[in-house]
This record gives sequence, structure tokens and C-alpha cells, in this order.
Amino acid sequence: MKQPIGVIDSGVGGLTVARELMRQLPRERFIYLGDTKRCPYGPRSEEEVRAYTWQMVNHLLGKDIKMLVIACNTATAYTLEELQEELPVPVIGVIEPGARAAIKVSQNKRIGVIGTEGTIQSKAYPEALKSIDQAIRVNDLACPPFVPMVEEGILAGKRAQGIVSRTLQPLKEMNHIDTLILGCTHYPLIKDLVQEEMGNHIQVISSGEETAREASLILAYHKALDTYDTPPEHEFYTTGDMEKFRMVANSWFEEPIKILKLVELESVKSSAL
Amino acid sequence: MKQPIGVIDSGVGGLTVARELMRQLPRERFIYLGDTKRCPYGPRSEEEVRAYTWQMVNHLLGKDIKMLVIACNTATAYTLEELQEELPVPVIGVIEPGARAAIKVSQNKRIGVIGTEGTIQSKAYPEALKSIDQAIRVNDLACPPFVPMVEEGILAGKRAQGIVSRTLQPLKEMNHIDTLILGCTHYPLIKDLVQEEMGNHIQVISSGEETAREASLILAYHKALDTYDTPPEHEFYTTGDMEKFRMVANSWFEEPIKILKLVELESVKSSAL
Repeated sequence: MKQPIGVIDSGVGGLTVARELMRQLPRERFIYLGDTKRCPYGPRSEEEVRAYTWQMVNHLLGKDIKMLVIACNTATAYTLEELQEELPVPVIGVIEPGARAAIKVSQNKRIGVIGTEGTIQSKAYPEALKSIDQAIRVNDLACPPFVPMVEEGILAGKRAQGIVSRTLQPLKEMNHIDTLILGCTHYPLIKDLVQEEMGNHIQVISSGEETAREASLILAYHKALDTYDTPPEHEFYTTGDMEKFRMVANSWFEEPIKILKLVELESVKSSAL
Repeated sequence: MKQPIGVIDSGVGGLTVARELMRQLPRERFIYLGDTKRCPYGPRSEEEVRAYTWQMVNHLLGKDIKMLVIACNTATAYTLEELQEELPVPVIGVIEPGARAAIKVSQNKRIGVIGTEGTIQSKAYPEALKSIDQAIRVNDLACPPFVPMVEEGILAGKRAQGIVSRTLQPLKEMNHIDTLILGCTHYPLIKDLVQEEMGNHIQVISSGEETAREASLILAYHKALDTYDTPPEHEFYTTGDMEKFRMVANSWFEEPIKILKLVELESVKSSAL
């Protein structure tokens, strides 16, 4: 097909999903768009998140994408259903892959979820889990300090450990869960800290890995897998500081990113075309 | 929708997949058909396997299934593509889910595959793996003694250990793999023996768990998930000895199976209707 796959996120957190997509689908070309200027989406209203997401989507639809991955839990919670209905290409969010992976590994059907205020308030994870298995009990917790912490690059050390420990305290007090979903694409960057705090008996699920795997299946299912012999150049777009974006991206990817462009979204239509 | 999901296998091995399907999709109803009378399919010709598989499929199509799961690697290798083209419902095999899961977990891109003669000769796994990532190196090995061993109920002890050890020897001698796919639905029953023989540094993938997860995604993707409040009665069909089938099934499931019927397939059409 030789069409790219579009990936959108509120900022740089979705790069953890993009990295997994590129690793698990090395014969595909990706276009990533991170709305870093208006990040984080977590504390924003549903209306705002929907408008911003549609602006990103409409920008990418002009680039002939064959699939859209919403690499942001907040945007997935508020817009997945309408995007699946409105877009002419398959749309994948990060919530259901995490939910399905958790159901696969949980033995006691008690699953924890951590995420932004928006994601947790939307109840998207409990709904996704219970729609598959009513017997599942969910303990969810909003962790507002985590995104700013990761964006500032505080990923290890005593200060990070202290923040993680204090924030997760309420979840630890109800610690009958055997599985914990990292319901925010920033959180894989502090997965080790979370694992340490929760204990090794808890299976921690990264939505990025799971989403990449499901994207792979949906492409195969539509017979839409590409077959590039050498990994093609991926394109990255940001709405904010380019050098900051490049620095973060280069610290996460094995090779420096080559194509990075600034994009202005305010003038793009903020609803279905 | 309140339509059942059909699951077919050459015998009882596919019950490991059915068990996972029922665990991960507890609000769905399943119909399982095992061709125990003509098991194993592994050493049979492609023509025979195709004809037998079509007989099972045509039998289940009369039961208004909304999805078909081919819970047999040999049948998947020979018939998946034509069934996906011909059937009016989504068709899932066990090979691609195992391949995608292996790609997700492998770090060094060297993946081992064990299966029946038919599955290994078909090269279905190497093809599935390389179509996604050309850089993957595959070591595959046919293990003819494993299916008869499992069918006889030899799942542990010195004799089983000896058979597993001798059979896997050629794979151990090329042991740069970091991931091993159990490419036969009988093998999860001897997963512990295989793990012990290969070493704990090898990640062993059970196709059943992975297939159940992908079935869950495809149903959600088609908005075809069911919502039974209590797990409905599943139906089981066998072409062979009913008491033997019941005994094996009851030893694998948490509760005894209730509806078990004998079916005669020889008179069913052995090609697309």
C-alpha cells in the first residue's frame, strides 16, 4: 500500500507508543504528531480535548494515512468512538489494548488503573474491562504529578521515588490487585519506579506495547501491512518547542529523528470534515 | 448479537485455546468441534487437512456462528487464507497471534518454533514472522512425539521429561533464540517441561492465550461482543470416542462440560458451499 500510519498524542508521551510501533512494525512508515504546545490534556475539559484531537486528526487525514493510532489515553477516552465512526480508516486507541492485556494476565480479576484526571474521571478503563468481563473489580487512581514529572525529565532518583511512593499510596492500601495498567503513555518512562513501589507480585501493563501489537493485527486483518525492505524515514510534527521535542525523542529512540516539522493547529477545523 | 463463536480443532488440543477463550471472553457462548476420530492432522497431506477442515467449517456454519477460530496449527497453516476469503464471518487462526506475541517479546529477533510435521513443513510461522519483520531469524523444529504423548496423558514424570529432552536437543544446540513459540495447541499441556528443558531465559509463548486475546479484539472491532450476564452453556462436538473426550475436557476445565454430542462429518461437504 505504501501509505503511512498516523500517530497522535497530546505531547511527547505518545513517543513511547510510537517507539513500540516502529519496533514491532519495522516495515511500516509512521507520521507522529504531538500537540506539545497545549499539553497536558489530562486536566482539560472534554470539549477542549475533542476539539484539539479533531485538529490533529484533520491535519493527518491530509497526509493519506491508512490507520490512526490515538497514543493518548485522555484523547482515547473522549474521542475514540466518534473517530471510529467518522474516519474512513481504522482507528485504534490505547485503552482497549491495555484492558485486553490485563484480562489476559490477571488471575484474580482485580485490576488497578492509574492515569490522568481526565482518563480516570471518564471511567473508560472500568467500562472497557467490564464490557468484556463483568466479574472484574477495578481500583483506579488519578496521578496528576506523574506527567509534569516525566515532562521535566525526572525519571529516577530519590525525588522521583518520593513522588511515586506518595501518589500510589491509596492504591497500595487496597492492594488486592494482581495487575496494574499504566493508563497514560508517559508512565512507561517510570515503569521501574512504579513496579518497585507496588511490588514484584503485580504485573504492570504498558499500553504502548499492547497497542502496537493490536495495530499489527488490525493491519494484517485488513491485508494492509507494508513491506518496505529498509525502515523508511518517519516524520514527526510538534506544535511547540522543536528543540525540546527533538531532545526528548532522541533520548528515547535508538537513532536521532531526521524529519521534524513545526505545525500550527489553531486554524485547522476542530470537528469532523 | 447472541450468536456463538465456533472453534474447530483436529482433536482435544484445541481445548487449550477454548479454555482461554472462555476465560478471556466470559460473556460469550462457544461451540467446539474436535475431529478426534481423524486426529492427528500433523502427518496428513494438505489435501486431506483441507477437506476435513471444510467439513468441520460447513457443520458449524449451520449453527449461525459469528466468528470462527481455527484452534489447530496444521489446519491454520493449510486453510486460513481460503477460509478468510470464503466465509461471511471473521476467521482467526493460531499462527499469526503466536507470531505477533513473539515479535512483541523478543529482544534479539531470534525466535524458535516447535510444531507438528505439517505445521513446520508449511513454513507458516517463518512466513508470518518475516512478513512483519524481515530481520527475524527463525529456528523451527518438528516434534512428532509430542501430540501422541499428550493424547496419552503423559504430561509429567521421567518418561515425559526424557521424550521432551531428546526431541528438543537439536533446538538447544542452536540456542541463540530468546523466544519459543509453542506452535501446536497440544503443547501448552507440557509447557513446564519445555520451559525447564530450554531454560528460564527463554520466553515461551502459548498460542492459545494469544489467540483468545486477538479474538477479543476482532469482536470488539466489529462491535460484535456479546453481553451475557451469566456464562451460557457451551456446546462440544466430537467425531470420536465421547467418553474419552469428556474425560480430557473435564480434566482441563474448571467445571464439567454439560453439552457433548457425537457428530458424523464424512457426509458433510468437504469444500466451500
